[in-house]
Amino acid sequence: MLGIEEIGFYIPTKKISNYRRKEQFGIDDHFIEEKIGVKQIAVKDSDEETSDLCLKAFDELCAKQAVDRREIEALVVVTQNPDQNIPHVSAMVHGALDLPAQCACFDISLGCSGFVYALSIFQAFMAANGMKKGLLFTADPYSKVVDPNDKNTSLLFGDAAAVTLISDNPRLVSGKFTFGTLGSEHKKLICNDGVLFMNGRAVFNFAAKTVPADIRLMAGKNDIDLGDIDRFLFHQGSKIIVETIADRLDIPRAKAPYLTYDYGNTISSTIPILLADELKGEAKTLAICGFGVGLSWASGLLKRL
Amino acid sequence: MLGIEEIGFYIPTKKISNYRRKEQFGIDDHFIEEKIGVKQIAVKDSDEETSDLCLKAFDELCAKQAVDRREIEALVVVTQNPDQNIPHVSAMVHGALDLPAQCACFDISLGCSGFVYALSIFQAFMAANGMKKGLLFTADPYSKVVDPNDKNTSLLFGDAAAVTLISDNPRLVSGKFTFGTLGSEHKKLICNDGVLFMNGRAVFNFAAKTVPADIRLMAGKNDIDLGDIDRFLFHQGSKIIVETIADRLDIPRAKAPYLTYDYGNTISSTIPILLADELKGEAKTLAICGFGVGLSWASGLLKRL
Repeated sequence: MLGIEEIGFYIPTKKISNYRRKEQFGIDDHFIEEKIGVKQIAVKDSDEETSDLCLKAFDELCAKQAVDRREIEALVVVTQNPDQNIPHVSAMVHGALDLPAQCACFDISLGCSGFVYALSIFQAFMAANGMKKGLLFTADPYSKVVDPNDKNTSLLFGDAAAVTLISDNPRLVSGKFTFGTLGSEHKKLICNDGVLFMNGRAVFNFAAKTVPADIRLMAGKNDIDLGDIDRFLFHQGSKIIVETIADRLDIPRAKAPYLTYDYGNTISSTIPILLADELKGEAKTLAICGFGVGLSWASGLLKRL
Repeated sequence: MLGIEEIGFYIPTKKISNYRRKEQFGIDDHFIEEKIGVKQIAVKDSDEETSDLCLKAFDELCAKQAVDRREIEALVVVTQNPDQNIPHVSAMVHGALDLPAQCACFDISLGCSGFVYALSIFQAFMAANGMKKGLLFTADPYSKVVDPNDKNTSLLFGDAAAVTLISDNPRLVSGKFTFGTLGSEHKKLICNDGVLFMNGRAVFNFAAKTVPADIRLMAGKNDIDLGDIDRFLFHQGSKIIVETIADRLDIPRAKAPYLTYDYGNTISSTIPILLADELKGEAKTLAICGFGVGLSWASGLLKRL
């Protein structure tokens, strides 16, 4: 059975402090620490590309666990900020890592729901094709599209990448997933002429309404009570949205960690970065849920073997 | 069992004749008719977007077969020329078609190998999640990135879109697939600053060498002799590459049709456009192979039920 064996990630060391932008944006410590929950955002170097972030995440994976590149049969990159649109980033990473010619490579274009979607897509693809070892990258550097003077976006989003080793020697395996889309609302979070626009209030309301219902639906499909789930790893959209979802599900906030104070909302990488720590932990059953651009969402259940 | 039930497609009526560009590019009728095999290219209107092409392909699908939108559980768009990078095109199409909120939507970024890859990815995803009806769009309008003065690209690529209805009531079902990537060669076909560059000779040599070997590998995985395959639907890269691959496989050229004289190489839509006709035909066993951007390739076998 395929599942998650190990996770590596990369968060750029370069940071921009939100405390130093209080005057510019008319915000206070409470807004920084309790509302958005982002004290500083991680920012890649200007000459660092999306594929470079992937390679650094892969280095971190290899520092944790030996990976024989000759065994990699599939590679996916989840991004909406590729190096360029042609070719896909996965081909560039394939070339840089000198992977086998028989390795299947493709990119998935999704935003904050991307990791959960891709976990289902990639595992299903690998299983259907008899593959035993694959790399699932998430790398969506929003510094490429954020206007530094836009209060709605520039305080929130950080750059990062993660790589999840999917193999037939897993530590976490997935149960049933749920998915959804509100395409009619896609203009609430969109790039116009290469610059990100977000209607923060609309996206918050969407997530606060949709995610709790989807988590309940997913739990039902997996025949598990919410009380029997040890950990809820929600996309780290902001501190307030994570807390709101936990409260509406009537679960203890301690079970739904918010931990991204020091690097920001890293889009599809927020959940694998949290999961990397959970791999070392004790939680037996973990719910995951991503939500955002599309508008789109996906939920799933992971169980420790 | 999931498979292909029906296919719709859209080719813009606006065309640019290559005969009228003979002097500009120093080419003759033999080059047009026998080498590239493109007499004219199809070009979308400048205000027509990638999602619009998808919607027109969907209209054509519905003219062939009733589709109950409430039953659509998944939607994928294969493109490297989206309306914009955020959000994914599939969310926009989802909104325009007013599909159910529980419908899973994502884009796959792949070029000319995209349909074959996506057929495997999407069917596997649907099967793993118990879905019975989904829409697989291909829409990659290269007019967005082609320099009209570049002889290597502007005579060759045409705009189009196709939509393949995947369902549990299929007419064609797939066997085993093969995949591959030569990421180290990705610069042979790349967008730099939004303009397409192609090393035509290198891409030709790659396809002429890689595709025949991959078709043999795929046939072996499916336990079938090449002589028992009724039809070979190769990506319509150019007339000369399709004929070269057929000759190297020692199969009759009539079994490997080249049919895109009047609209050009439409990237990931070439194979579904050919398949739309084959659905009405008699061929029992069809090989499909896409190859191009990445560099990337994929092959598969389809059997008529």
